[in-house]
Amino acid sequence: MPDFVRPNRELTTGEIAALTRAALREGDPVDRPICNIAPLDTAGAADISFLDNSKYLGELAGTRAGACLIAPRFAAAAPRGLAALETPHPYPAFVAVARALFPAALRPSSLFGTSGRAMSAQVHATARLEAGVTIDPLAVIGPHAEIGAGTLIGAGAVIGPDVRIGRECAIGAGVTIQQALIGDRVIIHPGVRIGQDGFGYLPGPRGHQKIPQTRRVIIQDDVEIGANTAIDRGATRDTVIGEGTKIDNLVHIAHNVMIGRHCLIAGQTGLAGSVTVGDFAIMGGQVGISDHLTIGAGAMIGARGGVMSNVPAGARWAGYPAGPILDWKREVATLRRLVRRGRKSEGTSE
Amino acid sequence: MPDFVRPNRELTTGEIAALTRAALREGDPVDRPICNIAPLDTAGAADISFLDNSKYLGELAGTRAGACLIAPRFAAAAPRGLAALETPHPYPAFVAVARALFPAALRPSSLFGTSGRAMSAQVHATARLEAGVTIDPLAVIGPHAEIGAGTLIGAGAVIGPDVRIGRECAIGAGVTIQQALIGDRVIIHPGVRIGQDGFGYLPGPRGHQKIPQTRRVIIQDDVEIGANTAIDRGATRDTVIGEGTKIDNLVHIAHNVMIGRHCLIAGQTGLAGSVTVGDFAIMGGQVGISDHLTIGAGAMIGARGGVMSNVPAGARWAGYPAGPILDWKREVATLRRLVRRGRKSEGTSE
Amino acid sequence: MPDFVRPNRELTTGEIAALTRAALREGDPVDRPICNIAPLDTAGAADISFLDNSKYLGELAGTRAGACLIAPRFAAAAPRGLAALETPHPYPAFVAVARALFPAALRPSSLFGTSGRAMSAQVHATARLEAGVTIDPLAVIGPHAEIGAGTLIGAGAVIGPDVRIGRECAIGAGVTIQQALIGDRVIIHPGVRIGQDGFGYLPGPRGHQKIPQTRRVIIQDDVEIGANTAIDRGATRDTVIGEGTKIDNLVHIAHNVMIGRHCLIAGQTGLAGSVTVGDFAIMGGQVGISDHLTIGAGAMIGARGGVMSNVPAGARWAGYPAGPILDWKREVATLRRLVRRGRKSEGTSE
Repeated sequence: MPDFVRPNRELTTGEIAALTRAALREGDPVDRPICNIAPLDTAGAADISFLDNSKYLGELAGTRAGACLIAPRFAAAAPRGLAALETPHPYPAFVAVARALFPAALRPSSLFGTSGRAMSAQVHATARLEAGVTIDPLAVIGPHAEIGAGTLIGAGAVIGPDVRIGRECAIGAGVTIQQALIGDRVIIHPGVRIGQDGFGYLPGPRGHQKIPQTRRVIIQDDVEIGANTAIDRGATRDTVIGEGTKIDNLVHIAHNVMIGRHCLIAGQTGLAGSVTVGDFAIMGGQVGISDHLTIGAGAMIGARGGVMSNVPAGARWAGYPAGPILDWKREVATLRRLVRRGRKSEGTSE
Repeated sequence: MPDFVRPNRELTTGEIAALTRAALREGDPVDRPICNIAPLDTAGAADISFLDNSKYLGELAGTRAGACLIAPRFAAAAPRGLAALETPHPYPAFVAVARALFPAALRPSSLFGTSGRAMSAQVHATARLEAGVTIDPLAVIGPHAEIGAGTLIGAGAVIGPDVRIGRECAIGAGVTIQQALIGDRVIIHPGVRIGQDGFGYLPGPRGHQKIPQTRRVIIQDDVEIGANTAIDRGATRDTVIGEGTKIDNLVHIAHNVMIGRHCLIAGQTGLAGSVTVGDFAIMGGQVGISDHLTIGAGAMIGARGGVMSNVPAGARWAGYPAGPILDWKREVATLRRLVRRGRKSEGTSE
Repeated sequence: MPDFVRPNRELTTGEIAALTRAALREGDPVDRPICNIAPLDTAGAADISFLDNSKYLGELAGTRAGACLIAPRFAAAAPRGLAALETPHPYPAFVAVARALFPAALRPSSLFGTSGRAMSAQVHATARLEAGVTIDPLAVIGPHAEIGAGTLIGAGAVIGPDVRIGRECAIGAGVTIQQALIGDRVIIHPGVRIGQDGFGYLPGPRGHQKIPQTRRVIIQDDVEIGANTAIDRGATRDTVIGEGTKIDNLVHIAHNVMIGRHCLIAGQTGLAGSVTVGDFAIMGGQVGISDHLTIGAGAMIGARGGVMSNVPAGARWAGYPAGPILDWKREVATLRRLVRRGRKSEGTSE
């Protein structure tokens, strides 16, 4: 069966110790070759795992992993045969190893093995491609679009007129981009929709009048956007996704939304029109933010949170209507206590 | 940087006064050229803003806007230099100006600058296109499909056999349409899926049997459908989207759903099978409606509402399970009061 | 107007009685031709309906249906003229008739009437297609991909390198598949995204480091996946969709998720990373499951359920945070009772 992602190299346990500043247990092999990552329970002799949580401690004794990055408190339990790499930060070390083994997996690559420009792609005569652009089959690049060096445009992607895409980006298959400026090193997964009209109407008793949406989408450097997410262009101010922000699949970002730098927004979250989000904010899955609200820098909204008022910087909110997470937990606990009391007082024994 | 949406014309402040029946303040210039719309805080000398909400009154004094449509109660505060256009309805007037400046932005246009039929589009020999149809590159039009005059089929869109699309429609890039009849002036944004099989199975202990979905999707005139929304075809009755209804991004509309005229359905809402929605109903974002329910004409479901019973015409509901919005607010308030009491009685001082 | 789905044959009422083991009422015609299915209220003379619910009993007297599969308790009410087919299981019988009338509707077919491989499709020289594969226009098949006999690849679909797709599958228009192995008889509706990178980062104060996602997506036999659903490939273990599982539109399935056999997952549901779901589990629409949880075999999660802890096998849960459905109903009822009491004690008469 195909592996798809093949390591670009292998690392010895000694090289891994050096890379991660982990301490290899005395007597463990320095030259054992490692070429993949895996969890303890499924790892084999050429795989490296990590252990930083007592939940998985039970898997340690029986693991077949070749090496394990391990927290000091668990190190004594590491079985013989395993190359034990002790470090106070096993998970970041594990990620560092993964990134060293699979540098090519850090950015999507051509699904057709294309190098340069596929003959079947439709590139407008006025589009400008820098050197080293890869255009997969059947992509469409509109008039006056500009694509930076090293960028990949996936199969069937459609880039509208005047769109600018920076360097070293990966635009997935079947993506559509219009009225947008995209920075460098941006990853956009398949099926993402950027820059279409937002949902703006003047309601009326004989029907709803469409309001022209005249602004753009600005995607800053190092943003990643998940599959089938939709980001509408601005109506009266640009929709902006700040540098380094990561957005998951099937997220809805309405017109005029401004998201700061290095935010994390999980799957199926929706931001209504004109929401402003500060830097380093985090939203769990299926969060909803009502229109015109402000989410402060560093705020965290728990999965499913339905936010109906401004969230202060650094706050941790959850629930619906969302409030401080401790309040929400108290609400849940209070209601459950009332139910239990009610059943007791009724003598229910169900 | 490109502006993408360029005004088709400019309007003088005098023309705007005439168009909107606003009263230009005495002494303000009649011939100031306006060519774009903007909010007060970012507007420049050729932009028009509006003010109808005291929340934004603070921005009035410092605005650099060339003109402002302004409610009578704020008119006295308009600074010199601004062309103040007094009107009891600033926002509708602002929309009217936007529509007059940007008539071409009221309907999506070709992303490739195509006029007529792109050579690379695959149009079946038996498809019938009226005059003035635009087919962008790499679109696919199936056998016996019919496309009305003035309609745009976007790049990579796929139109299945026998589908009929009316006049002056805009079908976005990468859209797929099958087993559907589409009216006139319909706008379908990129990535929308129309007419695929609904989710219908006869469950069983050895697996679930697929039930043929034999009906169609009917999209009436002047409907707009947001990016990546999915509308399944009917199983035993047609799925219908009524005239003038507007649907946002990532909405899920299951088989047999019948939506009336001039409804507004915000992002990520889901309507389960066989739901019926009356005319002019409104749903906020992330609403869910259980199968076989009826939402009465003019009903409003607040964002996140989870509807598990029929909603009377004209009702305003919210919450989950949804009920009258006042009841829901009382539930939220009651629970929060109980939490506060509980903490007092425990002497908590956190 | 086109019917799109045309019955492949017609059945007489006698043949239907034989097929479903229903008892045709004495004196009713054995040779009446039936060629379509319809609900009682819209059925015509060549249509068959079913009745197993007193909710629809009122429609029986006035129906124009040619035949009706009917539960014994309603049989006496069947009007003359209708061919009444008495059976203890009207709905399964109705489904059996639908499947017999419309065998071709059990699997999507080419939207271009393609037979064989469309000239405009881009098939890599190293891809291997078995006999009887249909490739619609403008599909893209990457290097070393393998497609089994009888499979349809829809217009504009993109199949990445080394992907394997089994026999008798239907891959919809505009689908993208990468790093995945697909079984036999799998149906994937338009716009589905399979195998892209999951949402995995090591968060940090200077930005979030992307974690390579090195595993695959495995889709077993007889799975069906709804329009615009996204399924990420595994990070450290394969993402797996078990045999016979049916997934609706706009569902989000994150990396490392393992779903068992014959599950049903309704629209807009989201499963966070590393969730494990047992066989025959059922999830309503807009359900959310937090990461690393286990949903036991046969468990049912009601629509909108937000699951934050493991769900035992066979349990029926709902609410948010989800718990046993009876508990959730009690919570809702308790809160509503408290609101009513509060209003009484305040003498409110609103």
